[in-house]
Amino acid sequence: MEGLPSFRDRVIDAVTRGGPLCAGVDPSAELLARWGLPDDDSGLRDFSSRCLEAFEGVAPVLKYQVAFFERHGAVGIRVLEEAIAAARAAGSIVIADAKRGDIGSTAAAYARAWLDPSSRLCSDAVTALPYMGLGALDPMFELARATGGGVIVVVRSSNPEGRWIQTAGVGAPAGAPGVVAPAGVTGTGTVEDTLLASIAGLNRASGGTGHVGAVVGATLEPSAFPLGSLGGVILSPGFGVQGGTAEHLARLFGGCEPGTVLANVSRSLLDAGPDVDSLRTRATELRAEITRALGWTLP
Amino acid sequence: MEGLPSFRDRVIDAVTRGGPLCAGVDPSAELLARWGLPDDDSGLRDFSSRCLEAFEGVAPVLKYQVAFFERHGAVGIRVLEEAIAAARAAGSIVIADAKRGDIGSTAAAYARAWLDPSSRLCSDAVTALPYMGLGALDPMFELARATGGGVIVVVRSSNPEGRWIQTAGVGAPAGAPGVVAPAGVTGTGTVEDTLLASIAGLNRASGGTGHVGAVVGATLEPSAFPLGSLGGVILSPGFGVQGGTAEHLARLFGGCEPGTVLANVSRSLLDAGPDVDSLRTRATELRAEITRALGWTLP
Repeated sequence: MEGLPSFRDRVIDAVTRGGPLCAGVDPSAELLARWGLPDDDSGLRDFSSRCLEAFEGVAPVLKYQVAFFERHGAVGIRVLEEAIAAARAAGSIVIADAKRGDIGSTAAAYARAWLDPSSRLCSDAVTALPYMGLGALDPMFELARATGGGVIVVVRSSNPEGRWIQTAGVGAPAGAPGVVAPAGVTGTGTVEDTLLASIAGLNRASGGTGHVGAVVGATLEPSAFPLGSLGGVILSPGFGVQGGTAEHLARLFGGCEPGTVLANVSRSLLDAGPDVDSLRTRATELRAEITRALGWTLP
Repeated sequence: MEGLPSFRDRVIDAVTRGGPLCAGVDPSAELLARWGLPDDDSGLRDFSSRCLEAFEGVAPVLKYQVAFFERHGAVGIRVLEEAIAAARAAGSIVIADAKRGDIGSTAAAYARAWLDPSSRLCSDAVTALPYMGLGALDPMFELARATGGGVIVVVRSSNPEGRWIQTAGVGAPAGAPGVVAPAGVTGTGTVEDTLLASIAGLNRASGGTGHVGAVVGATLEPSAFPLGSLGGVILSPGFGVQGGTAEHLARLFGGCEPGTVLANVSRSLLDAGPDVDSLRTRATELRAEITRALGWTLP
């Protein structure tokens, strides 16, 4: 499966043609009620279809929030399988926002679920949590690299509750027993900047495939790591309702290559539903606003 | 739903009667092949049934590794629903090892999936990852507290790749912008000890319901936090194949109340399959070994 376009190249191509908006597909109980849909598999299915129709050509990337399907168990996961397949068949790039994370054969099983072309849940990329170490996610990175997929690691999240972990100082308790520093990383820094440097190292080591990306919240101030050197795709939630502004986007991502940053908007967008035309209008406005903020030009 | 026995009390009762072995149900592709079972829903179903039969009365707690079901998509999740229901009906305490983690309404959706009695995936406890902050998991803690369930947070994992994050120093980059310290925690320490102190605080604040537990790998040396004051259940993987010894268990958990520590064994146990009697024999041996290591007495 070598020779496929890389995940990063596919995102750059899609964003260059369609803009940097990554539309969230978040069928929460609250949004289903607001849209007048039942909170069951038929509601999930209708919600997903409306999103796909509304966002075609306006948001080249769709992000499915797995939890909202998983809360209905196997029945919900079945709808998610159908939604992912329909979106990819329509030419969208699909991110499964699953935030999975584990070690060894378990990490390999998550890779199989979300990135193996033979899986019915196979997506273009999956999100992951690094608490058990970036190295623990290797089986996910490996499969992504081999198939032209991506793993987008949550590094700097947009919510305040995680900042104290993400900004903790690596190596502070000097010589703590059993600590293995990530490959290629020396010195000290915050957890988040060490992760970003490690991700850049993975992308460089694989010859620029850009298969490892990072989540960087749109509500944050820049950290010490220069995001322009990440070598992977950045997914940025938090624009709009959560407090992220155009100024945040410009400050955070001004140094990034055009096409490599996806601004994810979910709630601020989905509140415009259930009418497909209203959703599309809101997405078009958001796309223009975000594109301007990033200083990019759309065709 | 108030007034239910707490998760911690139920575990103490089960362990006091049946011992501290938490048997892993891990139908990986490799183990299915070793057991001569097909890698599909029928194989997953047969594997799960054999585990339930073999471990009854020897391991009061069963831990299902969700990834190995999820890799088969909706079909696999359907088998997991059946397996969880069968195990709970037989009187086992079920831990869904899902390692979920997210914020806000998404965390609430994961709570709904794994802890709401109306969900077909409802388990006695679910594992969670704290990278986005312990506070982000509040919707999971709240539902667990209200239903007599548990959330077991991965804090000190048994694999080496995560140690540099888990031992990072909280507050090291003094005054980093946007950092919100966890409630009730002052001063500095490692990420893992700060999490353990915060978990103890949650359990104390809720009047000793013990609905928040922690994963502490059996391969580690003790940290500064006294685990006897956690107030929740400790799940300890890593005994056996991963290198955790009886000495590790004794050193780590000597100060813990009998019944509050579950030693999880998966690979070392499942390698004895597929024969149900062989699995049972191996589980009985492991139970005795672990009980001795912990210095507890079985009835």
